[in-house]
Amino acid sequence: MKTTMRRLLQLTLLLLTMLCVAGVAAAEPLPSWNDRPARDRILSFVHAVTEQGGKDFVPPAERIAVFDNDGTLWCEQPMYVQLAFALERVKALAPHHPEWKTTQPFKAVLEGDMKALAATGEKGVVELVEATHTGMTTTEFTRIVTDWLSTARQPRFKRPYTELVYQPMLELLAYLRENGFKTFIVSGGGIDFMRPWTERAYGVPPEQVVGSTGNLKFELKAGAPVLEKVPGIALVDDGPGKPVGIQQHIGRHPIAAFGNSDGDLQMLEYTSAGPGARLGLLVHHTDAEREYAYDRKSSFGRLDRALDEAPAKGWTVVDMKNDWKTIFPAP
Amino acid sequence: MKTTMRRLLQLTLLLLTMLCVAGVAAAEPLPSWNDRPARDRILSFVHAVTEQGGKDFVPPAERIAVFDNDGTLWCEQPMYVQLAFALERVKALAPHHPEWKTTQPFKAVLEGDMKALAATGEKGVVELVEATHTGMTTTEFTRIVTDWLSTARQPRFKRPYTELVYQPMLELLAYLRENGFKTFIVSGGGIDFMRPWTERAYGVPPEQVVGSTGNLKFELKAGAPVLEKVPGIALVDDGPGKPVGIQQHIGRHPIAAFGNSDGDLQMLEYTSAGPGARLGLLVHHTDAEREYAYDRKSSFGRLDRALDEAPAKGWTVVDMKNDWKTIFPAP
Repeated sequence: MKTTMRRLLQLTLLLLTMLCVAGVAAAEPLPSWNDRPARDRILSFVHAVTEQGGKDFVPPAERIAVFDNDGTLWCEQPMYVQLAFALERVKALAPHHPEWKTTQPFKAVLEGDMKALAATGEKGVVELVEATHTGMTTTEFTRIVTDWLSTARQPRFKRPYTELVYQPMLELLAYLRENGFKTFIVSGGGIDFMRPWTERAYGVPPEQVVGSTGNLKFELKAGAPVLEKVPGIALVDDGPGKPVGIQQHIGRHPIAAFGNSDGDLQMLEYTSAGPGARLGLLVHHTDAEREYAYDRKSSFGRLDRALDEAPAKGWTVVDMKNDWKTIFPAP
Repeated sequence: MKTTMRRLLQLTLLLLTMLCVAGVAAAEPLPSWNDRPARDRILSFVHAVTEQGGKDFVPPAERIAVFDNDGTLWCEQPMYVQLAFALERVKALAPHHPEWKTTQPFKAVLEGDMKALAATGEKGVVELVEATHTGMTTTEFTRIVTDWLSTARQPRFKRPYTELVYQPMLELLAYLRENGFKTFIVSGGGIDFMRPWTERAYGVPPEQVVGSTGNLKFELKAGAPVLEKVPGIALVDDGPGKPVGIQQHIGRHPIAAFGNSDGDLQMLEYTSAGPGARLGLLVHHTDAEREYAYDRKSSFGRLDRALDEAPAKGWTVVDMKNDWKTIFPAP
């Protein structure tokens, strides 16, 4: 029996090897990336950390890659998707809150006055988040987000938001996973807002999503144990909060980080620190025709300091217009 | 080429199937568990959720199992290991803190007066944790914990703490993983205290460890980005905090939960709620000879309310003395 099993195992391994060789020869990685320095940099980094016996080899368990979401994996214009969600929730809930007609920041939202909304500042944002993201169980919130995403359309492209993900980044996620990486999202967006759809959109399961986190309260509701979303923030997963979120959730030092804004600066700094090969990459939105062109002056996804620091830090800047053959998956 | 690949694939799958059948026939699961109801319950649960087409089938991605650590996976007597660590750290650091000789809770620790220490209450615990678990980077803390564990010995068994893990639970972790489960630790213990060794001890990687979490601060130290452990608690992952930790870290509803004390009550309640097959299990320490016997009156790992609720909730109570053939792995 033992000999039979050993022979079976040997034969299986041989066949698997042949299949792998055939597979690699057949599929060229990152097909939506033009043959330019950004693509080369990704390929050479992955080669360096996966080459058995190479000086930069990293064991699979330590191949941690972290991705920002807004503007890095999906479109964040003309405003963050979660902000569009919050604004529409205010409108949907307004009939139950007659006082909102005369109270900021709700008055501004209901009147579509974005300038007045911006003037309410951080206090306004907190009130908006509490009004739309608390007061329900996590299960109820998941259903609200899922229902909204199934009908909401991005105003310019008239497509569901979850279809406006970047095809080249989907290929990059898959390519890293094929090479033994574990891919995480580390986003300033709300963790409960992302988890309902990241697995289908990106192949990233809920337990690999890190994001800004609201307080939760365990309680019995009609005898059933539930988690109620309550006011208060446990983690602002943005800027210096991103390395904190990485440590608290992952507990390992990433070796590759992908972002697009100054909110990703500390995540890229943290990832780049270390003795071995590291990859830091910024998506620069340079394509007004196929998507949007913005950087230093944008209200959403401002890219300023990180763009200045990229050359000295050795970060790769993706020129969306020239590096990417396509932006979104075909409808 | 395509035909060749298809044939190779078919042959590989056939051989893999044969290997699986041979493998299953060869290894009997949970060898350190006596053939009693607790073992039967585990086996029938795993069968139910993995049987293709069965009414309780759960897809692998949703097979989430959560394990308490202290008293469930490793020995928590005569005191929590992390408390032993904190007490020894106070002694090690005392030369730099002459004021500790006259200040509680440090005076009590230095004099070995556990009664006086207990009298300092929650305030004392917080001060003890801050003095021993903050003021260093996460990397430095990992080194401190690793160094300590390499020399510390449990007072009764004279073995390293990481060897005093329960052999039957190691087999259970492995058995669940072989059946497509993702195994997580959800412990009241400190997340940074556990992660340095859980992968080697249990096969649970850092990113699958949830625990009580202290605040972190991102900063540049001599130009290098680090995470400094600072005062303040982000999550007390005990009691009602366990379902919160599960949602914040995992974002999925577990289908199996393993604990040993009232601190696991809400985790078991939360896990047991839901329409499909669920497994809740409590390790009852009944073996004074081979380990310890304690429950309702213990200072560490008190098991009282959860023991009362177990029958009505359908939770399996493991009688350590009679259910387990061995307690610890052979030295």
